[in-house]
Amino acid sequence: MVKIFWEKKKGGTITSPQGFFASGLHTGIKKNKQKFDASLIVSQTPCAAAGTFTTNRVKSWCVLHAMKGIRHSYHRAVLVSSGNANCMNGPQGKKAIEECVGETARLLNIPEEEILTAQTGLIGSPFPTDVLKSGLPKLFRRLSEDGGHAAAKGILTTDRNTKETALSFFLGDKKVTIGAIAKGAGMVHPNMATMLCFITTDAAISKPLLSRAIRHAVDNTFNKISIDNDMSTNDMVFVLANGVATNPIIQNVDRDYRMFRDALEEVCRAMAYKMVKDGEGVNHVCRLRVFGAKNPTEAEKAARQIANSMLFKTMLSGANPNWGRIAAAIGASGVVFNPDQLSISFGNAHVLSNGSLRAAHIPKAERVLYKRDYTIDVTIGKGRGRAEFLTSDLTTKYVVINASYS
Amino acid sequence: MVKIFWEKKKGGTITSPQGFFASGLHTGIKKNKQKFDASLIVSQTPCAAAGTFTTNRVKSWCVLHAMKGIRHSYHRAVLVSSGNANCMNGPQGKKAIEECVGETARLLNIPEEEILTAQTGLIGSPFPTDVLKSGLPKLFRRLSEDGGHAAAKGILTTDRNTKETALSFFLGDKKVTIGAIAKGAGMVHPNMATMLCFITTDAAISKPLLSRAIRHAVDNTFNKISIDNDMSTNDMVFVLANGVATNPIIQNVDRDYRMFRDALEEVCRAMAYKMVKDGEGVNHVCRLRVFGAKNPTEAEKAARQIANSMLFKTMLSGANPNWGRIAAAIGASGVVFNPDQLSISFGNAHVLSNGSLRAAHIPKAERVLYKRDYTIDVTIGKGRGRAEFLTSDLTTKYVVINASYS
Repeated sequence: MVKIFWEKKKGGTITSPQGFFASGLHTGIKKNKQKFDASLIVSQTPCAAAGTFTTNRVKSWCVLHAMKGIRHSYHRAVLVSSGNANCMNGPQGKKAIEECVGETARLLNIPEEEILTAQTGLIGSPFPTDVLKSGLPKLFRRLSEDGGHAAAKGILTTDRNTKETALSFFLGDKKVTIGAIAKGAGMVHPNMATMLCFITTDAAISKPLLSRAIRHAVDNTFNKISIDNDMSTNDMVFVLANGVATNPIIQNVDRDYRMFRDALEEVCRAMAYKMVKDGEGVNHVCRLRVFGAKNPTEAEKAARQIANSMLFKTMLSGANPNWGRIAAAIGASGVVFNPDQLSISFGNAHVLSNGSLRAAHIPKAERVLYKRDYTIDVTIGKGRGRAEFLTSDLTTKYVVINASYS
Repeated sequence: MVKIFWEKKKGGTITSPQGFFASGLHTGIKKNKQKFDASLIVSQTPCAAAGTFTTNRVKSWCVLHAMKGIRHSYHRAVLVSSGNANCMNGPQGKKAIEECVGETARLLNIPEEEILTAQTGLIGSPFPTDVLKSGLPKLFRRLSEDGGHAAAKGILTTDRNTKETALSFFLGDKKVTIGAIAKGAGMVHPNMATMLCFITTDAAISKPLLSRAIRHAVDNTFNKISIDNDMSTNDMVFVLANGVATNPIIQNVDRDYRMFRDALEEVCRAMAYKMVKDGEGVNHVCRLRVFGAKNPTEAEKAARQIANSMLFKTMLSGANPNWGRIAAAIGASGVVFNPDQLSISFGNAHVLSNGSLRAAHIPKAERVLYKRDYTIDVTIGKGRGRAEFLTSDLTTKYVVINASYS
């Protein structure tokens, strides 16, 4: 693990890295005129780009378009719209993207292949191509170095807050910045859970290593959060690296690569935390750590089963240290463990120790669960495998939000 | 498929088959004196017995005891208690069962090996052995031919209603009866989801075939319901066959076996339906059918993913035909399918037909979802694989019940 010195930027966003411009506005896809529904992110120079995509077999047209488009050697822009997922709406959805990308390419005076797209919102509806197209000239004119905040608004659906971050660190004597905006998971209203994250950096890094770094970061962060158990048709994470920081280009798995990879993971972790915190109806964010498994895979299996358990999540919403639900979830996960070696701590309240209840610690555990953020540690044996998840409570508000149609 | 002629017994219960006696009462395990917390089921003659058990690695002492006990050649009685799961409470829990079984054997004047046990309730608490033991003489004295209804009460925790059924059919000129009582799944208050089902029959059938029939029935019914995604530490299904109907003993896979197996499945299906209907906070029961999969395994995979999806379940509670959530759930299931061949019907409202939305049918679909019971049919392709699940809506009440500790 390389020690990193970095600085979290106050008010940091996707335009914090040098050479990036962004904008966001209301075009009319969403009915509420106060809500932005389109964003544009542009780099002044060509970028190496990489991304990860939903593995759902039902994919939005934007996912299909981006999965193909990401293979291009370099990219310059990302066009995002919210309010319509452009999914399961027939061939019209494909044409919608082609038209909007064509118009964006004309405005930016770059080839269409250099534009990536993402969309989020209601699935199964015809995409309002003309609405978005008519907004593109204004979106283009508003592009600015401070436009990250506006862009952060244009990608949201039911999120209560924008999700933005940036951090800087040094590669040799060059200051490098990574910025990100995101839209939360479990944001299901009215139809579909979706997470989106767009990351920019002025670091110089080769496309293959950027791709490797983003897969590593996504696997350790976005793939280890749990709001509900559902998988979207539109999930995407993009990262664009334009090299404006003029560091020696990262093209080997060396110290610079590891620093960049760790910083990227930190940015993704910050975004993942904001997503969980802003999850539908969420009151509590729980960092769940599993220790002592045979190996990391087994630890992850146990952690995932606990993190996704509805009984565990309702327990968090009630702030009740019902450790039996944790034990039952591990037992159901298929992981081999000995209940007599099971230990469970709520924050610093060690409620179960090697299978024995320490009832005196229950009141302390209750106080921990009343907090907004806390850690639950579960030790399932004597192995060295460990895993960490970010999870949230399941509240009546979640049900109310997702039971309503529009 | 053998055609069966049978009669559903009104007021049928576990003592409807000949030669069974039962009782139920309040011993003091539960604080509320109005609530029964112990039941005893006894056959006048030795029974072939078979059972299925939770696959959770964390098992109650009663599950460990019964898994071993079920290997005995014949059985005479089942002792059940509710209010304490007797799970993860140290060696005291094992001793509790041995003492209570010993006392029951003495009262019934039968060997201990002929007694099966089941328990349900709060996990992690010491078992109140003396409380249950002191109630056993009265439980024994109250055994009667009409005691099934009392026994049905003694096994409940948060269930709103007792779950009882019985049906009769003829094997040759002998009338055979199967009766059952159950305790619901997703009955989690305060700590743990648990389902229990006890079945009696006066049919004569060999132990191996009884075991085969019950596995078949459980797999087609209890294993295909979804209230929450959690697996209990205490799940059990027992069936006892005492042969008092004097039919020629079923010991081959013949017409009589198939009739018995189908009747047993029907009894389990009735119990499964009652469990879902009485699930915590449940307002709607949905029969979910998946057609057109490559094979039954793929169909089951798709059905299970839909049935367990929180977005699908909240959609049911809101009575909104958001078919996109169904499509997304199938897409996430790993099943290979072509979205262009996907059809979805809510009752008789065909909302999606070969991937095309029929928007005019949405209002009709809404009316279907307002009903207490309905069927949702999903066709995912042109294969012959099909599967059926019983599932329920996820309501704010579920969250409220499971967020409260005691």
